[in-house]
Amino acid sequence: MESIETVSIDERNRLNFSGGPGVLPDTVLRQAQEAIREAPGAGLSILGISHRSDWFASVVAELQDNVRSLLGLPDNYHVLFLQGGATQQFTMVPMALLAGRANPAEYLHTGYWSGKALPEARREGLVRVLWSGEPHGYDRLPADNELAFAPDAPYLHYVSNETVEGLQFHRVLGRDDVPRICDMSSDFLSAPGDFSKFSLIYAHAQKNIGPAGVTVVVMKDELLKDAPAPGVLPGFLDYHEQIKASSILNTPPVFAIYVVLLVTRWLRGEIGGLTAMGRINAAKADLLYRQIDDSGGFYQAHAARPDRSTMNVTFRLPTPELHYRFIEMAARAGLSGLSGHRSIGGIRASLYNGMQLAAVEKLVEVMRDFQSR
Amino acid sequence: MESIETVSIDERNRLNFSGGPGVLPDTVLRQAQEAIREAPGAGLSILGISHRSDWFASVVAELQDNVRSLLGLPDNYHVLFLQGGATQQFTMVPMALLAGRANPAEYLHTGYWSGKALPEARREGLVRVLWSGEPHGYDRLPADNELAFAPDAPYLHYVSNETVEGLQFHRVLGRDDVPRICDMSSDFLSAPGDFSKFSLIYAHAQKNIGPAGVTVVVMKDELLKDAPAPGVLPGFLDYHEQIKASSILNTPPVFAIYVVLLVTRWLRGEIGGLTAMGRINAAKADLLYRQIDDSGGFYQAHAARPDRSTMNVTFRLPTPELHYRFIEMAARAGLSGLSGHRSIGGIRASLYNGMQLAAVEKLVEVMRDFQSR
Repeated sequence: MESIETVSIDERNRLNFSGGPGVLPDTVLRQAQEAIREAPGAGLSILGISHRSDWFASVVAELQDNVRSLLGLPDNYHVLFLQGGATQQFTMVPMALLAGRANPAEYLHTGYWSGKALPEARREGLVRVLWSGEPHGYDRLPADNELAFAPDAPYLHYVSNETVEGLQFHRVLGRDDVPRICDMSSDFLSAPGDFSKFSLIYAHAQKNIGPAGVTVVVMKDELLKDAPAPGVLPGFLDYHEQIKASSILNTPPVFAIYVVLLVTRWLRGEIGGLTAMGRINAAKADLLYRQIDDSGGFYQAHAARPDRSTMNVTFRLPTPELHYRFIEMAARAGLSGLSGHRSIGGIRASLYNGMQLAAVEKLVEVMRDFQSR
Repeated sequence: MESIETVSIDERNRLNFSGGPGVLPDTVLRQAQEAIREAPGAGLSILGISHRSDWFASVVAELQDNVRSLLGLPDNYHVLFLQGGATQQFTMVPMALLAGRANPAEYLHTGYWSGKALPEARREGLVRVLWSGEPHGYDRLPADNELAFAPDAPYLHYVSNETVEGLQFHRVLGRDDVPRICDMSSDFLSAPGDFSKFSLIYAHAQKNIGPAGVTVVVMKDELLKDAPAPGVLPGFLDYHEQIKASSILNTPPVFAIYVVLLVTRWLRGEIGGLTAMGRINAAKADLLYRQIDDSGGFYQAHAARPDRSTMNVTFRLPTPELHYRFIEMAARAGLSGLSGHRSIGGIRASLYNGMQLAAVEKLVEVMRDFQSR
């Protein structure tokens, strides 16, 4: 019988299937650790570096460039690094783009996180829920013929990957004449896509690109043309002010931003860009879904097949007792973070960028072993 | 001639006089570094630990307890760990306690940071500036006979230590029948005090207690009795919601919170509490002010003597050329972060909790050498 004591800490960090904060690449952990003592080129601990230093300005500039370059976006997109998570964006977006408008913004309610965005938007203005997965327990996403987008909406808001349910859109939704706003928190920089179709993308770091504490916002310049003038909203909630300050309106989360820079360097360098990253992520997900599908119904996938997420693979075991025994057996082998979100239960294996194929192979091995016992 | 190359990185981290993010204790840096690989008791990297784990719940609980214990506050004070810095509190405070009130809140304008709070408060409601240091360039604080506090103000807001100007209140202001709200960002947990006289204290971490990315809010339970009901304000800006969620409304900055825990453990353990910390901080500041005062006017203190800060010591050299030569000579000896804030210039030596007396002795030695040349 395997025992957790025999699994090294480095291996346990690689076998972290948590929905987030989650696994990070080995090389990023090592560099982050070194930076606590000395950030390369800064001559000081990353925790003691002034956010007004030239060194940190170059970190922000390189990171903005890396994000734009990885997403294939031109210079008319601003790249911001804010605090407050996706939750803060649930409020900042309608504050800037919905308050005072005559027409409702269109929101999709496809799962837990898109649902969290709704009350915050309704506080600021009119909202039309274009489609809701509630009647069937958020086990699938809408088909094109279920969606009638209005041409006069201030914007369309949706979540590209529902972390809790494990549902992912594999296409871009909406109309070209209505700004698309997308919460990509759990699949940001995980695969290539036509990101120039979006007017605003936001993603907190703690899934694919870094530790908790920073949120990336990518925003097309012209989106703010009808937003409240600079100075109307509280400064830290005002995209104008944040853009003007290049994300350093007040002290930013220096360490978290630096770790995101390390992840983007790894993506551009060692991995070779989003096409390569997407291929790796698809291979990991395919392996796991195949194991589920080939289990003769022992493991049951939550998400409808066309909408399965490459990032969060959700499934169930036949009974609660088997569920707990499975989690236990996986833990002994060093695998952690497999319990599904408290709102839906079951198993969730999150396969973010930092997770290696070998970790998924290990999970599949545990699943096979467990079923055969 | 000394050269920066001969100063080790550990020594340079100790000689960091930055206004913030600033110096942290050696032991905290070491433990933070180790936690990037494995957080003790968690069996995982601190960057990959779920904020919903039992381990992290125990971090938050211990830290809440440490903060209350260090400040000598009873259980009717909530302790929150939020994002957005003091800047976010500039808005959250008046949103909760000023909007819609008939009487103005009273604000002191004693320097750069208290000035930043004013427009954010005015956006939400009526503000009366009780006293302003503007006419004399923020070089002193008001005496008691310059302050006439109104009995019917919703609250009094002031900044206990002006980081930029190096001004610090060495007494508690205001009336017992009006809630005192204090931005203690740059002197939080630096010395003992009668903290139960305050209804709300806030402080971002990156001066005395940790890295950038988290802000501590300590709030008396009854303060919210006239605040908007839960659900009226956006969730992340609603103290009710943050209290209910015990600071884990959405993903908190796990790493930054953990480092703050390490600092509070160090304060309670190795240092022995705020009385001992205050004695150490006073000794450091005394040494430096004595050097300034004994320089025959070569070094000129910015702040009026009774209002001098123990945290941020601000002074000037006779000419801009001497200023730059001094900064250069200090840099060669490994001392960094001595340039004053861009808004006032001059020299600022920040002597936060993590700075050792030996570092201030080194600074004083450099000052003596420089003057004698």
